[in-house]
Amino acid sequence: MAALGSAVGPRVAPARAGQICRRAVIMPAGRTRVVVRAELKRPEYIPNRIDDPNYVRIFDTTLRDGEQSPGATLTSKEKLDIARQLAKLGVDIIEAGFPVASPDDFEAVRTIAMEVGNDVAPDGYVPVICGLSRTKPQDLERAWEAVRHAKRPRVHTFIATSEIHMQYKLRMTPDEVVESAVTAVKHLRSLGCNDIEFSPEDAGRSDPVFLYRILGEVIKAGATTLNIPDTTGWNLPHEFGGLIAAIRKNTPGAENVIISTHCQNDLGLATANSLAGAMNGARQIECTINGIGERAGNASLEEVVLAIKLRGEAQMNGLRTGIRPVHIYPTSKMVSDYSGMIVQPHKAIVGANAFAHESGIHQDGMLKNRETYEIMTPESIGLPRQEQDRGIVLGKHSGRNALNSRLRSLGYELSQSELDDVFKRFKALADKKKGISDEDILALMSDELHQPKVIWELLDLQVVCGTMGMPTATVQMKGPDGIARIGVGVGTGPVDAAYKAIDSLVRVEAELSDYSVSSVTQGIEALAHTRVMIRPAGKMSDAGYSEHAALGSVQRQFSGSGANEDIVVASARAYISALNKMIGWMSVVVKVAPRTKPAVGAGLSSGASLASVDNGQAPASSQLTAAST
Amino acid sequence: MAALGSAVGPRVAPARAGQICRRAVIMPAGRTRVVVRAELKRPEYIPNRIDDPNYVRIFDTTLRDGEQSPGATLTSKEKLDIARQLAKLGVDIIEAGFPVASPDDFEAVRTIAMEVGNDVAPDGYVPVICGLSRTKPQDLERAWEAVRHAKRPRVHTFIATSEIHMQYKLRMTPDEVVESAVTAVKHLRSLGCNDIEFSPEDAGRSDPVFLYRILGEVIKAGATTLNIPDTTGWNLPHEFGGLIAAIRKNTPGAENVIISTHCQNDLGLATANSLAGAMNGARQIECTINGIGERAGNASLEEVVLAIKLRGEAQMNGLRTGIRPVHIYPTSKMVSDYSGMIVQPHKAIVGANAFAHESGIHQDGMLKNRETYEIMTPESIGLPRQEQDRGIVLGKHSGRNALNSRLRSLGYELSQSELDDVFKRFKALADKKKGISDEDILALMSDELHQPKVIWELLDLQVVCGTMGMPTATVQMKGPDGIARIGVGVGTGPVDAAYKAIDSLVRVEAELSDYSVSSVTQGIEALAHTRVMIRPAGKMSDAGYSEHAALGSVQRQFSGSGANEDIVVASARAYISALNKMIGWMSVVVKVAPRTKPAVGAGLSSGASLASVDNGQAPASSQLTAAST
Repeated sequence: MAALGSAVGPRVAPARAGQICRRAVIMPAGRTRVVVRAELKRPEYIPNRIDDPNYVRIFDTTLRDGEQSPGATLTSKEKLDIARQLAKLGVDIIEAGFPVASPDDFEAVRTIAMEVGNDVAPDGYVPVICGLSRTKPQDLERAWEAVRHAKRPRVHTFIATSEIHMQYKLRMTPDEVVESAVTAVKHLRSLGCNDIEFSPEDAGRSDPVFLYRILGEVIKAGATTLNIPDTTGWNLPHEFGGLIAAIRKNTPGAENVIISTHCQNDLGLATANSLAGAMNGARQIECTINGIGERAGNASLEEVVLAIKLRGEAQMNGLRTGIRPVHIYPTSKMVSDYSGMIVQPHKAIVGANAFAHESGIHQDGMLKNRETYEIMTPESIGLPRQEQDRGIVLGKHSGRNALNSRLRSLGYELSQSELDDVFKRFKALADKKKGISDEDILALMSDELHQPKVIWELLDLQVVCGTMGMPTATVQMKGPDGIARIGVGVGTGPVDAAYKAIDSLVRVEAELSDYSVSSVTQGIEALAHTRVMIRPAGKMSDAGYSEHAALGSVQRQFSGSGANEDIVVASARAYISALNKMIGWMSVVVKVAPRTKPAVGAGLSSGASLASVDNGQAPASSQLTAAST
Repeated sequence: MAALGSAVGPRVAPARAGQICRRAVIMPAGRTRVVVRAELKRPEYIPNRIDDPNYVRIFDTTLRDGEQSPGATLTSKEKLDIARQLAKLGVDIIEAGFPVASPDDFEAVRTIAMEVGNDVAPDGYVPVICGLSRTKPQDLERAWEAVRHAKRPRVHTFIATSEIHMQYKLRMTPDEVVESAVTAVKHLRSLGCNDIEFSPEDAGRSDPVFLYRILGEVIKAGATTLNIPDTTGWNLPHEFGGLIAAIRKNTPGAENVIISTHCQNDLGLATANSLAGAMNGARQIECTINGIGERAGNASLEEVVLAIKLRGEAQMNGLRTGIRPVHIYPTSKMVSDYSGMIVQPHKAIVGANAFAHESGIHQDGMLKNRETYEIMTPESIGLPRQEQDRGIVLGKHSGRNALNSRLRSLGYELSQSELDDVFKRFKALADKKKGISDEDILALMSDELHQPKVIWELLDLQVVCGTMGMPTATVQMKGPDGIARIGVGVGTGPVDAAYKAIDSLVRVEAELSDYSVSSVTQGIEALAHTRVMIRPAGKMSDAGYSEHAALGSVQRQFSGSGANEDIVVASARAYISALNKMIGWMSVVVKVAPRTKPAVGAGLSSGASLASVDNGQAPASSQLTAAST
């Protein structure tokens, strides 16, 4: 592991910080270098104990809690990519999903369990693969079935314990809740699962005395990790730390299991709460990349890990994790691209400005020493320092091998056909753009690789727009039947026109719930990177529901992304990608536009282009199809 | 003030949380309603003391620390708008800028001091207007001159006290630093300033013993507020809380001044650190709207305020603030729009998803009680709950009065001519879009009102683009001489083409450093809202530097925004707005394209349209001007 830059700082005396700070050492200040210890070995994995008292397990729930946030729906391929990246990062446990949510979710967890969960590193590291489950027997069985092929499978079951949740959501008495939890843990044991995590949902607002009771009972039944969620982000750090300490002290058998934190960020305190939990004896922290998750999200993995890395020795009694921070930035980028959950420029550690205080500073200025304003280096989290460093790495004369080797260093392992596709687009881009940066490459990759199974494909697009009004788009697309058709649309703007032209061919009712564009690199000729989010609408608005772990039946939203030098083309690609994802997920029978269709809207002639197309060639003949409304 | 929803939660025992928690009450849990107290009067403003021991002053530095983050440069008009909004919100102190940075910054602070700083509410409330200053005499004099017309003027002076800063940045000995600080405070007193804040920069990494000394000396010299910045975001909550407690205990005279926190967010702990400071006796919290600021930004005003609002009584010994949370959401939106610093969807309290857990939930689902997942209501921060509520409020038949009354309820007071402009664009939009939402109106307003002085104006734009390549744009613009000209550009995409066409007329060398688009409202026909950021480049790359409080000479970046149904038109408007801002700020002599200009680039015929245009009419004759490269 790369040593973490050089963190500078005197250790300040926290006067009498009581239990939260166990080492209140007043040190004479001065320029004290924090010496980063030589890397310690990751302790052997045993579900209910850790042989190093300072080691905190990092449990990543990006693929479960993160993925259930509005619009963050990921394809199975994207989930697998992210799981592989999380293994590179060295997370101890990957919560891969909620298998009972849908057959698609089940398959994604199973694939991750079989592939990532069996890819053992030379030092013996392999992430635990975990599936979430309510306490119902069929949920538990599905979850176990999904994870059991991993080398280290875990099932995480939960039930709410706060009075408001028991009364209004579960409509169960406390006794019934205890019985349900105990039965679930025993059922998992009977299935052969020996790594069992239990969460009392909304623990942060639950009666502590009831918590001691239910937690004691599930330990007796065989649970090995007890996770304490502050489900609504209600707790303050001293309060949550106190809760963890109280649970450790008062729960019978707590000394034989791992206590875990799961903090939501509704008041912006998730990271501080997680650290307070660890300082009070929790030895697993649940978190997500970029802090994504429902509402205000979860504790950010990168914040928790860097805080422990930089301050664990001096201020947290020697706490450490097994995370390799140098993979943080690429992982953050991948999750942001795939989920469409952008990070704000001022996001701690991974935001675009996190290290940007240097940009624009006069070289003759007063910043003589990086450490004056920098407590970690960008390199330590995998972000090259200089723009020019992360800038131009390839150009139009770069060959396939150069591209492949660059892709490998960025963490992508491609099949030959995937490489062929990316190389073709790389060359097309290199013809237009002076130099291709890593970020351009990442954008092409995210456009290329996490596209869902292609159902509808964009062949050509042409748009006229401007202040004169009547923006008009013409698209040519190939449908699931391999036939190329042409559609026309008039809209309020060029993107709206293109979407209406696409709608005239795809004929799935979708509502656009979000649309955003960012330029991938600096400069006017940058690739535009477009993200859209859609949900089933109109006649389909009753479709697309799946089980949500906490909330019950929830309508899914689907994101799509596209990268192109032309913002309208990028927008069209993103929309088609989201439509394909939605169609694939719902297994909707796609009805192709009939051969003759009466003219609709806008006074344009309409119809359908019907030429049969093989191998993606242009149709032999074409005819206009239904125009927009 | 509206009562804050209904916050539900048992008070959990923080075991022995020592000094940080002063009230460790184990309560039998259950469905305990936190009763929101009847609003208490804001205590009378006296610089060095507060007569209510539980009242915490909120010091907003959005216009100073926030505005100095890369690209967040605001126009004077935008600063004034934000200051007015901050006064509505009820912040105790507005740090309006760093007057010595540039004449523009000075004027902005002075205007805010004269206008917002004299707008006394019926209850006597008027915000303190504060200006930042280094310890140099000319800095101090400029700062005092800028704020002194406010009813309650304050100057905030600072010097670094950590060993690394003193040694590498200041190149001063500790004794010299103390002398400089004391001299500065005395100089301010001699100017007639009686409300003086002093900050030891990088206090979080400074020797506490040195802090006690320098702080004690500035108190003797006449400082009334001592602000303790964790400049690099290095501290943990218990550590920062301990530092505040230690300073209160060990600094001679600390009982006669206000102690303040200023926490950066590099490890995601700024909010928790600020609260820890207040729990240890700090009675002023410095923060920014949306947490913007350099690198990872500052403590978020909304997070700090809501945490105190919801948990102050139960968990923070009764702390309270004078903020009216119902203005939080509109303020957040304004700052995000004006500064171009977007908030991520999962940003606590003000992010798009912060209350989005309800969206898509089946009405027959299990969510019987909002409080199961909601610790505050969206209404309490000024965000209407239902999409339909914040949705369609006006349509094509709405008149000028309806629009004006809606604008007033959104916080805008317009002059007759401003209203005329907005109404014209409102009608044009209403013709194309079924219903106009508040967010559409806010987008039109931010496009319309915070445009800088118009130097170049877009008259017309026409673009052709698509997968065929060669996207081409034609623009007609009116220059500072009132003459309309036509320019043509070919680019990699439609936006690039439009920018090149604009460049061919404006002829200022600018580098695009950021470009983003968001749709303002849901639905395909939404307004596109574009933000760009540019900086002087090429021959101008040595221009545009200004004094930065901490870093010395820094090159400014300039943001621009545009809203239009057509994304390319919105992008062109944003670029022109940024160019105008840059030209205005730098007072560059704009050279208008000469009447005859040899053809450049792309093999297009070129020239300049020279018809003199009065009152924005189209030119009588036109001729093509220089094309793009």
